[in-house]
Formats: sequence, structure tokens, C-alpha cells
Amino acid sequence: MEQDATTPEGRGALIAADRVEGTAVYNRTGDHLGAIKTVMIDKTSGKVAYAVMSFGGFLGIGEKYHPLPWSILTYHRGQAGYVVDLDKRQLEEAPSYGVSDTPDYDDPVWGRKVHDYYRVPPYWM
Amino acid sequence: MEQDATTPEGRGALIAADRVEGTAVYNRTGDHLGAIKTVMIDKTSGKVAYAVMSFGGFLGIGEKYHPLPWSILTYHRGQAGYVVDLDKRQLEEAPSYGVSDTPDYDDPVWGRKVHDYYRVPPYWM
Repeated sequence: MEQDATTPEGRGALIAADRVEGTAVYNRTGDHLGAIKTVMIDKTSGKVAYAVMSFGGFLGIGEKYHPLPWSILTYHRGQAGYVVDLDKRQLEEAPSYGVSDTPDYDDPVWGRKVHDYYRVPPYWM
Repeated sequence: MEQDATTPEGRGALIAADRVEGTAVYNRTGDHLGAIKTVMIDKTSGKVAYAVMSFGGFLGIGEKYHPLPWSILTYHRGQAGYVVDLDKRQLEEAPSYGVSDTPDYDDPVWGRKVHDYYRVPPYWM
């Protein structure tokens, strides 16, 4: 992501996870979709698997978390947020869970379902 | 890290960055060295480059941040914290910066220095 920030040697620019957290997410038409709650890290490979986006709800009621494959997020400096190529309806039908639930992030079947929905290869491929 | 949590297909167990943040760091003899402040993510590759550990100080005075290559951290469930193979003196001499400073995390020369100190390959290799 943020291809324009790529530096030599195959390295990209670094960002602190605690700055990613709270960052707004927009779609391509500029609609505000939600904000990043946290990112999920694969402990063994050290790769970021998902950004967890909070979506919908008011004062926490009706709010849901959406696991977004890290690879579908692009940072846009102008908007000071991430942009994903999704409309609100696509997001409403996307894999999600309630704020008091925790999916089995280690389940490969669930992981494939999430990645298939967004048509990107799983983070472990 | 946490090799025992490895799951099939080359995937490891996942952990949320906001749970890594605040986790204690110990050395092999059980000394408390500090706590993880955040993790630095390579935006392009999606790989965690460093865990940033706060070390030393009292009520924020004299506190320093140490960038630790993610690969040197091992999570120990029994201690509910990360263990690194470093004594306090090694850490005192390690690359660090003050809490109000920000190093150029995108500088490959600086990145190599940090990885060389801990004798591990850079995250971009």
C-alpha cells in the first residue's frame, strides 16, 4: 500500500501501529466508512494480516468490526485516511462481527472466506 | 516468534497490535526490561519491522524508546510477556531515542545499525 512511499531495497516507509489505530477509512467516492480499531499481526511471520475497521453504529450501538485484508488498504495523504474500493452495501454484506464477539482469527477457513470476499490472496500465500 | 502457536499452511496465530502494546518485556533471567509502546509496520510489505520498547526512567523522566527487531522477541505465556536474550547493559548501549525524539525509521543506514546491533537480518531481507 501507499506505493508512492516505497523506498529503495524493497523497503517501504514505516508507520506506527498506534498511529494506524483511529485512522479514518473512506471509499473511492469519499464516503466515510469507519475507522481502524487495530491491526492483526501474524506472530510467526510478523506480517500484518488484517486491519480491523469499526463500521456503523451510534455511540457504540450497532457498531461492527470488519476484518479488512491489509492489502486492500491504500493510504491517501490528502484525505489523511485509508481508501478502499468498496461501497457501503458491499461492506454491509462483508464478513463482520459484533464488538463483544471475537471470531477465530486463526481458523484458515474463516480467513479464506474473508480474503475471497475481497478477492485478494490470503496473507499467508 | 511463539513457534508453538504455529498453525498449518505456514500461518501463525494472530495477535492484535493493541494487545501487543503495553505488554511487558523480560530478559532470560526474568528481569523486567520495559514494555512495548507500539510496533512499526512497513506499509508496502505489511511486515512488522520493530517493536518499540519503552525502557528505564521514572514517571516518564529518563525514559527511552528502543526499537527491537520483531524477530528477536519471543512471547512466553507463563510470564505473559515477551522475552529477549539481552541483559540490561546490552540494552543501555543499544540504539535508542528520547521520548520526544523521532528517528528516521525510513533511513536504511539507521535500520541496518539497529539490526546489526541485535545480530539479525534486516526485516526487508
